[in-house]
Amino acid sequence: MDFTMSDRQRYWRDRVIAFMDAHVYPAIPTYDAQMEGFGANRWQVVPVLEELKAKAKAEGLWNLFLPPSAEHDDDEFHGAGLTNLEYAMCSEQMGRVGFGSEVFNCSAPDTGNMEVLHRYGSRYQKETWLRPLMAGQIRSAFLMTEPAVASSDATNIETSIRRDGNDYVINGRKWWSSGVGDPRCKIAIVMGKTDTGAAKHMQQSQILVPLDAPGVKILRHLPVFGFDDAPHGHSEVLLENVRVPAENLILGEGRGFEIAQGRLGPGRIHHCMRTIGVAEVALEKMIKRIQSRVAFGKRVSEHSVWEQRIAEARIDIEMTRLLCLKAADMMDKVGNKVAKLEIAMIKVAAPRVALKVIDDAIQAHGGGGVTTDFGLAKAYAHIRTLRLADGPDEVHNRSIARMEMGKYVNH
Amino acid sequence: MDFTMSDRQRYWRDRVIAFMDAHVYPAIPTYDAQMEGFGANRWQVVPVLEELKAKAKAEGLWNLFLPPSAEHDDDEFHGAGLTNLEYAMCSEQMGRVGFGSEVFNCSAPDTGNMEVLHRYGSRYQKETWLRPLMAGQIRSAFLMTEPAVASSDATNIETSIRRDGNDYVINGRKWWSSGVGDPRCKIAIVMGKTDTGAAKHMQQSQILVPLDAPGVKILRHLPVFGFDDAPHGHSEVLLENVRVPAENLILGEGRGFEIAQGRLGPGRIHHCMRTIGVAEVALEKMIKRIQSRVAFGKRVSEHSVWEQRIAEARIDIEMTRLLCLKAADMMDKVGNKVAKLEIAMIKVAAPRVALKVIDDAIQAHGGGGVTTDFGLAKAYAHIRTLRLADGPDEVHNRSIARMEMGKYVNH
Amino acid sequence: MDFTMSDRQRYWRDRVIAFMDAHVYPAIPTYDAQMEGFGANRWQVVPVLEELKAKAKAEGLWNLFLPPSAEHDDDEFHGAGLTNLEYAMCSEQMGRVGFGSEVFNCSAPDTGNMEVLHRYGSRYQKETWLRPLMAGQIRSAFLMTEPAVASSDATNIETSIRRDGNDYVINGRKWWSSGVGDPRCKIAIVMGKTDTGAAKHMQQSQILVPLDAPGVKILRHLPVFGFDDAPHGHSEVLLENVRVPAENLILGEGRGFEIAQGRLGPGRIHHCMRTIGVAEVALEKMIKRIQSRVAFGKRVSEHSVWEQRIAEARIDIEMTRLLCLKAADMMDKVGNKVAKLEIAMIKVAAPRVALKVIDDAIQAHGGGGVTTDFGLAKAYAHIRTLRLADGPDEVHNRSIARMEMGKYVNH
Amino acid sequence: MDFTMSDRQRYWRDRVIAFMDAHVYPAIPTYDAQMEGFGANRWQVVPVLEELKAKAKAEGLWNLFLPPSAEHDDDEFHGAGLTNLEYAMCSEQMGRVGFGSEVFNCSAPDTGNMEVLHRYGSRYQKETWLRPLMAGQIRSAFLMTEPAVASSDATNIETSIRRDGNDYVINGRKWWSSGVGDPRCKIAIVMGKTDTGAAKHMQQSQILVPLDAPGVKILRHLPVFGFDDAPHGHSEVLLENVRVPAENLILGEGRGFEIAQGRLGPGRIHHCMRTIGVAEVALEKMIKRIQSRVAFGKRVSEHSVWEQRIAEARIDIEMTRLLCLKAADMMDKVGNKVAKLEIAMIKVAAPRVALKVIDDAIQAHGGGGVTTDFGLAKAYAHIRTLRLADGPDEVHNRSIARMEMGKYVNH
Repeated sequence: MDFTMSDRQRYWRDRVIAFMDAHVYPAIPTYDAQMEGFGANRWQVVPVLEELKAKAKAEGLWNLFLPPSAEHDDDEFHGAGLTNLEYAMCSEQMGRVGFGSEVFNCSAPDTGNMEVLHRYGSRYQKETWLRPLMAGQIRSAFLMTEPAVASSDATNIETSIRRDGNDYVINGRKWWSSGVGDPRCKIAIVMGKTDTGAAKHMQQSQILVPLDAPGVKILRHLPVFGFDDAPHGHSEVLLENVRVPAENLILGEGRGFEIAQGRLGPGRIHHCMRTIGVAEVALEKMIKRIQSRVAFGKRVSEHSVWEQRIAEARIDIEMTRLLCLKAADMMDKVGNKVAKLEIAMIKVAAPRVALKVIDDAIQAHGGGGVTTDFGLAKAYAHIRTLRLADGPDEVHNRSIARMEMGKYVNH
Repeated sequence: MDFTMSDRQRYWRDRVIAFMDAHVYPAIPTYDAQMEGFGANRWQVVPVLEELKAKAKAEGLWNLFLPPSAEHDDDEFHGAGLTNLEYAMCSEQMGRVGFGSEVFNCSAPDTGNMEVLHRYGSRYQKETWLRPLMAGQIRSAFLMTEPAVASSDATNIETSIRRDGNDYVINGRKWWSSGVGDPRCKIAIVMGKTDTGAAKHMQQSQILVPLDAPGVKILRHLPVFGFDDAPHGHSEVLLENVRVPAENLILGEGRGFEIAQGRLGPGRIHHCMRTIGVAEVALEKMIKRIQSRVAFGKRVSEHSVWEQRIAEARIDIEMTRLLCLKAADMMDKVGNKVAKLEIAMIKVAAPRVALKVIDDAIQAHGGGGVTTDFGLAKAYAHIRTLRLADGPDEVHNRSIARMEMGKYVNH
Repeated sequence: MDFTMSDRQRYWRDRVIAFMDAHVYPAIPTYDAQMEGFGANRWQVVPVLEELKAKAKAEGLWNLFLPPSAEHDDDEFHGAGLTNLEYAMCSEQMGRVGFGSEVFNCSAPDTGNMEVLHRYGSRYQKETWLRPLMAGQIRSAFLMTEPAVASSDATNIETSIRRDGNDYVINGRKWWSSGVGDPRCKIAIVMGKTDTGAAKHMQQSQILVPLDAPGVKILRHLPVFGFDDAPHGHSEVLLENVRVPAENLILGEGRGFEIAQGRLGPGRIHHCMRTIGVAEVALEKMIKRIQSRVAFGKRVSEHSVWEQRIAEARIDIEMTRLLCLKAADMMDKVGNKVAKLEIAMIKVAAPRVALKVIDDAIQAHGGGGVTTDFGLAKAYAHIRTLRLADGPDEVHNRSIARMEMGKYVNH
Repeated sequence: MDFTMSDRQRYWRDRVIAFMDAHVYPAIPTYDAQMEGFGANRWQVVPVLEELKAKAKAEGLWNLFLPPSAEHDDDEFHGAGLTNLEYAMCSEQMGRVGFGSEVFNCSAPDTGNMEVLHRYGSRYQKETWLRPLMAGQIRSAFLMTEPAVASSDATNIETSIRRDGNDYVINGRKWWSSGVGDPRCKIAIVMGKTDTGAAKHMQQSQILVPLDAPGVKILRHLPVFGFDDAPHGHSEVLLENVRVPAENLILGEGRGFEIAQGRLGPGRIHHCMRTIGVAEVALEKMIKRIQSRVAFGKRVSEHSVWEQRIAEARIDIEMTRLLCLKAADMMDKVGNKVAKLEIAMIKVAAPRVALKVIDDAIQAHGGGGVTTDFGLAKAYAHIRTLRLADGPDEVHNRSIARMEMGKYVNH
């Protein structure tokens, strides 16, 4: 073990930091002003973001998330060649700004979708959707969760994908379909059942559905707390007799869970490291705030209750970061499957610590904390969804416990 | 001590429950539809609310909050004659619905403002503002908190109220001015300094400022975790050379803290009991949800982790309710001042328990919990503000600790 | 509801306080010295305790715990006539000193055993054991928990009570048999199975076993953390072919659970109120300590982190006390069965708050906190057992949750 | 960064594991029996421990704690050559058994004392005390904390070390003098003031005091939650006109804080890694217990509340371990001073997580948890002292917060 960053780790991370400093942080006011300028129709492409993307692409800070992989190597479709661990360090930096990851073409759910296409996609699927995704020309969605069932248990998912001649016909209702609100979003990967009679984990498949296919209806954009998350958004989508060619099916019937497993690891690390970035920003704001205010005859920062909160924040953030980095390192070396304990752990740990730190930061800001002036309430709302997205804490804790108990099962 | 409800306590509470059951709960869909119908201009009077108010007034379920008080008796201006304890029990019921209290003309900040006018107002002030407030014809605001200073320490407040001939001229910037967004809001009580040279707690005064006075500018409505809270709202208000007649000053120069003390007790009990009501609703929703969903082969309600959460919720709600009721009872018997320990305690305790219960309820609802479908995210956002409004937890805990430490100071 | 103490409530509580002040607190050094003087043989009667008992008895502060009950009235065997609520207030005061309750002949497990005999005992059983117990001449034990099974589920208990002619023959192994170490302990109530073929809750019976019966072997005294709790003690007891006359069976075969239910309510209130007393003492010690020490240039009490802890302690203690008192009041008015929700709630709530307060008090005392100098580590150890004794938290939370969920079961 | 263990890290750790498996775990019953056999006089050398020490020494698993250091190199006095990081991994394994570290001559406070002598000792001091300590022939103590002052602020320490001719004369009262109870304990390092007129951090010195020097009186052995921790013990020691030669002073007058700083880093890592070991053992016991018991118709391990606790334990242990290892790695690479943030963080984090895990494990064991049968109550008591020893949490949190706030002080 070695806790010093390698030159290569530092190289990539520092380039991202430098780019954030030079271009992304200074662009925040412009981004906000352009969103503000949209008025009621907020589901639009923000011009400054496209400018930033062009710059990042030109500098080679692009598709950093896609790990090198001999197994899935493809000359034409490759990322910047970072390991998961190297990328994790970059990812924290990107996460410090809400739209940061997208600047580097590293934002969810595109990252997961690109990985899936990269690993499991046919040549046709890659040409058609992976190419423009990697170029940052289109965006994509992943339609998994359903409002009618406890999706924490993915075997509950009910959308049907029925073979009909050379097509598949899809019927179902999805929600939390993130990114569907964006006008650039052209393609969705949809999870559903091709065979309800098969073994429990062989019933599901994943299929590519263009968003302009007849029968795809965006019912509404779901607010998170009261935030619309425009222009990205989280949508409720009705799929009514949506017909797509059979070649849109990924990997094969019944392989939906297999694809899901392959997908989940890297995405969780990205989410968790971005979450660490959010927590760091909250801690920084908390400290600056209490240093700038006076109450009862002294700076708020001199009231020792805040010392305890800051120290706990620093401890918990640092510990969680290390665990995330370890999980990333394990993914690089032993793969998703062996690292599944670590991946489950960070999925639970990272939002937990960030919510605590953000909540304390809100408290430090008084009334300013719960409104939009400091971004803290929005950060809280966003991170709160991560205790539910991709499975609630309880399900991941259950997995962890079962692995743990498995050690002693025959004692 | 006697923990059985008296006939009179039960009488009033049951009347409120019956009215809620008969009229308020059934009106929720109408209320939501009318708000929805407003489209972009959400700062409007909701018609169904006025209908409900008329019904409640006709039944004598009106101004229940105003406690009988020999000292401040005034034949013309009186409430329904309930004690704080009796009203507290009603208040919990009203709190179960967001607009519930307003139906009975018992919503903040009107309640506090009416109390202030009732206790400290001149005949002129009562005729002009208390009368229409008690009739439910107008609404009011209370302008205290300022964005530029740590308002947790109220001596920091900087708005100036300067005597100029027969007028006062007011300059300052306020925020979290709740209710200013409502078109019916006609009058504000403003806290500010009349004499910066006086002793620390004698510098502040409170003055009545009509919202249509020249120089009153509503700068914006502050979102709470993305919610606008329309048509009530929480506003940032600029007061620029606002001129009002000297007779608008309440009680006298330098008596702002005295008035604030008198105001705070009952309002805190109302807030806390409404908070209990919100927690009860969240617990009910949590249980119904987990009973209706299946995961991993059994009802979610059969997973024992939820047993622990439900039990803790029930314990904490019940304990907090008792403390609130005790505080109310003490206010009736020994007054605000003696009850200040209990009032500070419930101010901290009630939001704490409610936030925990609501957060668990959000978790039980999965993705449904963080959006607007079940009202839980909105409830969380609303209650989260109560850990800051009227002083953050830290300040109340400080007061409690000082009273506690005072017992042993010469040991 | 009425949160003011009645004259009668105050009368009894104040008499106990006065007696504690006059006699019990001043006797602590003597008690400690006499225990110290015993050297290695600590399982002895402490003389000063017997003197205090005589005084309390003479003043009529005796058997205060035994509630008046028309149903179980018996001219000869009655307590002081206090309600559960009245006694609860006294019980908190007694709990402030480790041996306090025994002074008033109100200590566990005698109280529960006396209640059982009072309610369910035959004339013979009352004459033989209730009489000397009420006179404070002997002490008693309750043998329930077994080391071999999860006793949290009382149906697991395996001790056999087999009828043999005019006798019952008892075999089993018990532990946490509190009070067996005391030389005055003469009688035990033993829970065991008379009929393993009966319905699940009809298999158990309770029987009186003299501790000098052949076959009763005290195997060891169990330390609590490292404390022996002498001369009371918590013992592991082997029952090997212990033969007692059939008339020692209480109430009848298969009625063990029925008796247990009747027993549990009052005892839990006593334990919880004593626990509140312990928490109050810990809070008092914490405050005095931080007021007496200086660190980093100011009194520790001026470091605001302690303000937060003290305030939380005060809030939590007061809330828990109110819940305990409510449970006591309900027992008086509607009985154990209806009050079972409240009784389960306090069983969980009281140790939880006390452990938190004691732990903070330990922290305030530095190294002094974890040793025996301030009684805090011992208090922690003692209260920690209450999260397990008479059923662990999880089981009570399960009961609470089931009652709560029962409200909505057919929604 | 690289989270895979290096060959060398694995080599040493695996050797320790193999030795523990072959010799230490099997010796536990013997150790317990020999302690038991001592009866009332428990302050004796346990024979099996000396046998184990001989074996470990023979295998070269000896003085592993002493890091290689060019600066303080001394041909004669060197350890096994492990880095702090390498040793940290071994230390966790040793910590799984109460007397584990001593087997390898790696137990506190000898480790810290040896480091001090190694770094700062004169040739005379090394020959006289470091040599037999490194040989495991004698043991030592560190006398720092005082009962009369808040020792959390070390400038409060009052023991006087007064120069008198060629001697120093020492007067003071110390407590928590760990290890003084052991008959092999021959030497103590004592912290005290040589010059009360000097600058605040230049008043203190450290001096070597043989325990048989006239005037050294062991007043008592302090119990930790009722445990005596024999034969090691934590003692209260009176120093009355204790006279030692001037050459016993370490490094020079006024350099006490400098020595203390140098000492603290490695010791904290040892303590924290041992604490991780204790937490792992508790988790293992918890799981085995709930797998072996049945309640309410299923194994306790199938009640999902335990899944949540196990998962949280695993997450928190793993995160804390990583932070400790990072701190160790930093000490190796950049030294104590630069690593002081990390060292402060683990000091707070490790006991916190261990106490939580042990407490849950106690709960899983029911009555067995709070007594001595499973070692859990003793583990809890021991680890609870670590929230106070070498400075309470609050002081370390204060340091962390100040470093954190220092980043933004001129913003």
